[in-house]
Amino acid sequence: MALNAAVVAVGTELLGEDRLDTNSLRIATVLRSCGVPLVFKSVVGDDETRLTRALQQASEEADLVIVTGGLGPTQDDRTRNAAQRLTGGTLEQDQGVLDWIRAMYERRGAQMPATNARQAEVLAGSTVLQNDRGTAPGLRFEHNGATFFLLPGVPMEADGLLETALRPWLIARGLEPLAVETELRVACLPESLVEEKLASLYAAHGGDGVAILAKPGEVLIRLRGSDAQERSDMVKAVEAALGEAVFTVVEGAGQSESLEQVAVKALRDRHASLATAESCTGGLIGSRLTTVAGSSSVYAGGAVAYANQVKINILGVDAALIERYGAVSGPVAEAMAVGAAQRFATQWSISVTGVAGPGGGSEEKPVGTVWFGLAGPGVLRSRCLLFPGDRERVRWQASQYALDMLRREVLELDALEESPWMTVTRQQPPEPSEERLGGLSR
Amino acid sequence: MALNAAVVAVGTELLGEDRLDTNSLRIATVLRSCGVPLVFKSVVGDDETRLTRALQQASEEADLVIVTGGLGPTQDDRTRNAAQRLTGGTLEQDQGVLDWIRAMYERRGAQMPATNARQAEVLAGSTVLQNDRGTAPGLRFEHNGATFFLLPGVPMEADGLLETALRPWLIARGLEPLAVETELRVACLPESLVEEKLASLYAAHGGDGVAILAKPGEVLIRLRGSDAQERSDMVKAVEAALGEAVFTVVEGAGQSESLEQVAVKALRDRHASLATAESCTGGLIGSRLTTVAGSSSVYAGGAVAYANQVKINILGVDAALIERYGAVSGPVAEAMAVGAAQRFATQWSISVTGVAGPGGGSEEKPVGTVWFGLAGPGVLRSRCLLFPGDRERVRWQASQYALDMLRREVLELDALEESPWMTVTRQQPPEPSEERLGGLSR
Repeated sequence: MALNAAVVAVGTELLGEDRLDTNSLRIATVLRSCGVPLVFKSVVGDDETRLTRALQQASEEADLVIVTGGLGPTQDDRTRNAAQRLTGGTLEQDQGVLDWIRAMYERRGAQMPATNARQAEVLAGSTVLQNDRGTAPGLRFEHNGATFFLLPGVPMEADGLLETALRPWLIARGLEPLAVETELRVACLPESLVEEKLASLYAAHGGDGVAILAKPGEVLIRLRGSDAQERSDMVKAVEAALGEAVFTVVEGAGQSESLEQVAVKALRDRHASLATAESCTGGLIGSRLTTVAGSSSVYAGGAVAYANQVKINILGVDAALIERYGAVSGPVAEAMAVGAAQRFATQWSISVTGVAGPGGGSEEKPVGTVWFGLAGPGVLRSRCLLFPGDRERVRWQASQYALDMLRREVLELDALEESPWMTVTRQQPPEPSEERLGGLSR
Repeated sequence: MALNAAVVAVGTELLGEDRLDTNSLRIATVLRSCGVPLVFKSVVGDDETRLTRALQQASEEADLVIVTGGLGPTQDDRTRNAAQRLTGGTLEQDQGVLDWIRAMYERRGAQMPATNARQAEVLAGSTVLQNDRGTAPGLRFEHNGATFFLLPGVPMEADGLLETALRPWLIARGLEPLAVETELRVACLPESLVEEKLASLYAAHGGDGVAILAKPGEVLIRLRGSDAQERSDMVKAVEAALGEAVFTVVEGAGQSESLEQVAVKALRDRHASLATAESCTGGLIGSRLTTVAGSSSVYAGGAVAYANQVKINILGVDAALIERYGAVSGPVAEAMAVGAAQRFATQWSISVTGVAGPGGGSEEKPVGTVWFGLAGPGVLRSRCLLFPGDRERVRWQASQYALDMLRREVLELDALEESPWMTVTRQQPPEPSEERLGGLSR
């Protein structure tokens, strides 16, 4: 049984100048993993009449209509009402749902606001989809030959119901991926270079066989083969082309690992500990590492050394180094790394000091210039890269590069080749002297 | 003459997992500047039949339909053909356009590929919109009472035609901005509570006058009045209802400030300095503060004190306090804040220590329990909140609460009332003793 799907995103804010329907991207991922093509998307504001038309029209375009948003407690949440108009059904307060919402508030030691009672209004005859992450239950019903899923607009809540309601429903219908996929992720290489290196593989298997998706600071590669043998040959070809830039490979529907997960895992496997010393990234690297559950077994912590005085007082960087080379320099990056490992008593440390912009750039060190330092058992390195883009982009790419530099060192892989989208001026790693590494042998 | 508009984005790649229709954001900006509301958006793949239906349906939703994409030279660019089907018209090769495309190639010292001749096919009776940035001309025509603009999908080319074709057309129709909007942002209050408190205002002005948008940890309120007087009355009403939870108010097209921007500004205005001490947030607060350009004038840095040993060694927290109260406790949160201010030599500091989960929860301190500490001139406080949701959500809400707690203290506002979505167990702020505040008087 082959289905296709449409998405309707509800909310006036999604018709503005600053917000897009990002839920549809994750919906597309779930659909694709079950081999269901997404053929149409629409966005409509908090207008019951337009919304009702949009739902009708989506049901004419597809067998499966996934609606996100408009299930909140406020008066401008109209999706329940539109579903009622669409189907000519009735909305009834569901005591079970009401009790459940009330209990949810009580578990938090709070009283349910009266307005939330609206969220217990259910389309008669529809199936309630319990939302464990919020107070808006989802609904499933049939109309005009299509199956409707009404999901909350809050991404976290929508994601929950995609896994607990949509995916099981698809699987129960025996919907299997056309071919199982293998996903690989590549750090710090530009999409264009990945495409170049995979050109022959792409030529051999086409867009259905090889999908290349660009994400900030990394590239996802999805391989589809008719069987496991073909797929593993494809994986080998990718690894031959991209080498150690590939940081995770996952078969089928499994969740591929993030770069921070891979780095934490590499350290945990070696019972090693890590500290961070961040200037321009301001805590972004620590924040990414600590999104990994269990990172506390590896990550001791770090210093956000934004001011030079902090580099000196907290990390023990020699003021003379900053004086001589500037805060954004190899020697200071190395001293920050060594200081972090010593002060936080860890085997490994990474440091970042750079010019994120918009201000602070110079002829010699333009905005986007970032120095990285890494210290580990018998290892002390620094690198400088020039990242394109605005402050946010520079910071993100820097955190991505630092995590990849750590991953490569801990796993004893080759260093990242120079990549076209950034100028890399490399400094000869100085011989680690006992004195400089003193702190690391602890 | 009041118009409204719809956008149709064409391209199978926009139905995938990594690409969204970003052209519609800039279209919305041009429309808004001319007071034309965008009421509907759709995305359709390179499928002539579906595309034709999408165009028809958009013309039923709006007076003005802006279509982007599908004007390229290849066979899967179907927008011209769909327009022909839609209108029952004919496509004719326009010699002027053909010559122009040829000349464009020649200016680049190249021969026009034969395929590009397709781009010279024009819907009979339509107006050609010259594209100075590429080879795909835009087209304008009337159908079903609506005016269609067909624009290229390449953002740079679309942007060019928005300014050279769409905007002049709108201005020629004497379209003026509608009532300007005022945007307010509210921190750490749940949408339902905001809705409750604004019920009467909402009743008076309806969904067009008052839009309430939930974002993680905050709520956006957009007010539309017929004139400045009405709008300022509405703002007063919101501020009366929500008080100091409102952290930014911006008129018209201006960009409203983020909570971190407001906190940094409050400190900068007072020439005050700040340090952070983060455990469960792992650097997220520092990372958010440093997204603000110029935050270096205020933010010295901080410690990511993930391990207890770091709380002791780097922040000088008394090991006995951790022993007696546990790392997630008011006394430890306060000691972290005092230590951060002392070690980083700042007037202000905020600290966070909590259980982000999924592990580490207990009967007494369930997952989501987070203690906050704040130290400032003559001020030392701690608070405990219980946040719902998974690790990522707990961490985000904690960073939001910490920034709001800082904002309120620095601006000498009242503390946040208990909000329904979190249990707040407050500890009497102990009298700041000279000894404990010693580091702060520097």
